[in-house]
Amino acid sequence: MSGTAPDGRGGPHAFVADLTAPLLDEADHHHLARVLRLRDGDAMTLGDGRGAWRSARFRLDPGMGPEAAGEVVEVAAPERPVTVAFSLIKGGRPELVVQKLTELGVDQILPLAAERSVVRWDDTKAVANLGRFRRVAREAAMQSRRVHLPEVLALGEPADVADGPAVALAESGGEPLGAPGAGPVDVVLVGPEGGWTDDELAGRRTVGLGSTVLRAETAAIAAGTLLVALRDGRLTAQS
Amino acid sequence: MSGTAPDGRGGPHAFVADLTAPLLDEADHHHLARVLRLRDGDAMTLGDGRGAWRSARFRLDPGMGPEAAGEVVEVAAPERPVTVAFSLIKGGRPELVVQKLTELGVDQILPLAAERSVVRWDDTKAVANLGRFRRVAREAAMQSRRVHLPEVLALGEPADVADGPAVALAESGGEPLGAPGAGPVDVVLVGPEGGWTDDELAGRRTVGLGSTVLRAETAAIAAGTLLVALRDGRLTAQS
Repeated sequence: MSGTAPDGRGGPHAFVADLTAPLLDEADHHHLARVLRLRDGDAMTLGDGRGAWRSARFRLDPGMGPEAAGEVVEVAAPERPVTVAFSLIKGGRPELVVQKLTELGVDQILPLAAERSVVRWDDTKAVANLGRFRRVAREAAMQSRRVHLPEVLALGEPADVADGPAVALAESGGEPLGAPGAGPVDVVLVGPEGGWTDDELAGRRTVGLGSTVLRAETAAIAAGTLLVALRDGRLTAQS
Repeated sequence: MSGTAPDGRGGPHAFVADLTAPLLDEADHHHLARVLRLRDGDAMTLGDGRGAWRSARFRLDPGMGPEAAGEVVEVAAPERPVTVAFSLIKGGRPELVVQKLTELGVDQILPLAAERSVVRWDDTKAVANLGRFRRVAREAAMQSRRVHLPEVLALGEPADVADGPAVALAESGGEPLGAPGAGPVDVVLVGPEGGWTDDELAGRRTVGLGSTVLRAETAAIAAGTLLVALRDGRLTAQS
């Protein structure tokens, strides 16, 4: 049946590969049993990360898997998925950004190497960091009862994404996000502390996120909050 | 003259008691000289924390104070100041919340002891924590070039603030923030992980911050982002 995501009242949420014959990862089972202290038979919800979920009962025996206790609910993906791309910065907290963007409901998360990012990753580091970001996103998606896992993309450059009418760079003095007339923005790129270069800005739309000067991580979280509120029709641009 | 806040292009920002005869605190001078590596004569801005600011030039000699280099600009306080109150929780990161709410431009920040907060402070701890939160807010206000320091209030209870038509508790399934008809919301209270009690909810407005289940700290940051966007007229409720 179709429906909405769990609201958290049905217990904690975990992802499994198969909703018909659910089995928890060892780490998830440990978290539920030891950290959240679930007992045998306690209510929880299970998701496949691709929009389907069902109610279940936790089993203390990790070999048994949770017992399905409700119909499978299918939640439609957003019609207008939103993306936040954020530039890596020295001393930054990229895990905090990935965690918050996932909780807020952003569909696609992209770490960026902007020209002034300072931070550079070699291939080994890029693979390790992408794996860590995806683990952070998975945990945050369980915490926030998301039914669609966000897509965490590999490190890119602004040129990889900064084209198309719905893409804008966050920049002080840019148009308000969702301003009428200019068309909707679905992808916001957040620059490093040193700002975008003229090359990166050339010919591209810019959006302002407020009247204060935001740290890169705060700008990314604010962009995610506003994009999701606009995507879900809770807010609209001032006309 | 009247005007807008500095946009960050005029260098780093610091607060002084007197804009006419400015003197930097020792800690601020150290930060500017050692961490940001300003040199003698570098551009910076000075604010009094109450809406006035001016351009200046940094002096390496801490005894001299910065040299004023521009007229004093007066920025009007928001007509509809916004408040975020957030419940303390075990293992929470209240400093992160205070930092982000300050950067985003929230006018008033209030730590709450909700019924299910679990965390309790005695008087000594409450005073120490309030002092720390105010230091965090001051640093974040410098970082974000705010001209009005946010007011960080002493630990309160929902009953201290949760009355009046513009006050709402953040709660899954509540009306969207800024929904037309119900009147504007200027004060959002964010509950602890265990949620509000029936007593706290009784007879009060509730607002929803999205369709995901947000961690308390994320809910507070999202509430701040949306309240400031509505306050500044960048977004409006979907009608």
